Amino acid sequence: METVSDKNYIEQVSVECVILGYQNRQLKVLVPKLSFKGDFWGLPGGFVYQDEDTDEAARRILHARTGIKDVYLEQFQVMGKANRNSRAFLDRMIAQNADRFNNPLAEGQRSRMDYDWFTRRFISIGYYALVDMSQVVPQKTDLDESIDWYPVKEMPPMIMDHNQIVENALTTLRLTVDQKLNAFNLLSETFTMQEIQELYEAIFDKRFAQNNFPKRILRLNVLERLEKKYTGAANKAPYLYRFSHELQSQLLTNDLFE
Amino acid sequence: METVSDKNYIEQVSVECVILGYQNRQLKVLVPKLSFKGDFWGLPGGFVYQDEDTDEAARRILHARTGIKDVYLEQFQVMGKANRNSRAFLDRMIAQNADRFNNPLAEGQRSRMDYDWFTRRFISIGYYALVDMSQVVPQKTDLDESIDWYPVKEMPPMIMDHNQIVENALTTLRLTVDQKLNAFNLLSETFTMQEIQELYEAIFDKRFAQNNFPKRILRLNVLERLEKKYTGAANKAPYLYRFSHELQSQLLTNDLFE
Repeated sequence: METVSDKNYIEQVSVECVILGYQNRQLKVLVPKLSFKGDFWGLPGGFVYQDEDTDEAARRILHARTGIKDVYLEQFQVMGKANRNSRAFLDRMIAQNADRFNNPLAEGQRSRMDYDWFTRRFISIGYYALVDMSQVVPQKTDLDESIDWYPVKEMPPMIMDHNQIVENALTTLRLTVDQKLNAFNLLSETFTMQEIQELYEAIFDKRFAQNNFPKRILRLNVLERLEKKYTGAANKAPYLYRFSHELQSQLLTNDLFE
Repeated sequence: METVSDKNYIEQVSVECVILGYQNRQLKVLVPKLSFKGDFWGLPGGFVYQDEDTDEAARRILHARTGIKDVYLEQFQVMGKANRNSRAFLDRMIAQNADRFNNPLAEGQRSRMDYDWFTRRFISIGYYALVDMSQVVPQKTDLDESIDWYPVKEMPPMIMDHNQIVENALTTLRLTVDQKLNAFNLLSETFTMQEIQELYEAIFDKRFAQNNFPKRILRLNVLERLEKKYTGAANKAPYLYRFSHELQSQLLTNDLFE
């Protein structure tokens, strides 16, 4: 039986992914629920192979959960507290699922090693992804009971500091969305001005004046105006827009990180 | 002889610090030069003890180099490439300083272990600090020939990816300075409007229109106006300002990370 401690991972480093989507005027986060008694939710995460970039590890984890590869992904925070480990959550899980763990300390060296491996201090690298929910088919792993999208305002209580990690991802998104122009990754390829406004209102959790918002967004000069959206009522039909990477690259004088 | 591999550090994780100061209308970075033949400059950095927060490790490294403790410090990026190691630089250093290394591979197990420890892949956590240069007395360590402030436009060629780390720190500062209002940490406690404008011009490496800038800064509503600066010519004397943390905390509705 191969155990996690046999694999060629960097020790004491993990990656956690906040996968953000947008639907029905709400920001949502993709969260698996573990198939153990006791309601354990946790962000999709994993470890980094010795020969793997940390960004690659995050993309591997994302792909395993969403089925898609070409995703906006950003490293935004390191959780580096010395007392950060999964001991409390793992002990609670073992206590409530004795039938499945069957006293792990007596199961021989390999289980003991895995317990020790998992419960060491971990420095965790936080990533957030912005995805077009219509492209995603959430994927369960062997350890999951379910995987679902939760509105950011109705997150389940997650293990360790994972709720805080989601909060920090949102803070980062709000702080830099106007400079990075990354919110458009949450929409389908074309959208109306009304839809962009609703998205920004969901991100900032506040309303923007209807007459100011289009001006503010168009001033960013990264939207291409397309044909009108077919609604049946031609004279009231709103224009469709598309985010233009070409216009963006002309705009940015300082390249952001790769 | 105690070697680095004996210490209770987290393996394969390091911390690198970009210490930014401001003087004579220039942003500057504090960089030590190692006391080895061959011109080796590198950012102040180090490792993380098992019982130490990553933020604490950065503060420890900063304090050792600047002599000051209460510093604005922000974790901004992880360097996580799989091929990121110090092998090339260390081999070059050993080749050019044979008298001091005296064939490290033959020196016995301990040196060999240290060589192996240092040349493994490292995931590096990047921090930047904003300091009031007038408060700093740069500190050499035993390994340094010198330690100096270098203008960001005239950085020496540093080891590994350290020049890129400085670039990324600047990108982050530019991207978020208006939301985090952290640039004031680079100034002394009181300053004139002209001095703030020069600081922002140094950060963004461009000029701002003299008549727009004060309006833009005062609109942030975090500056307290004090008495006029004594210049001898009372009627032309500019006002002094001070950054107000109280005004700032009233302003921010979303707390930034701690």
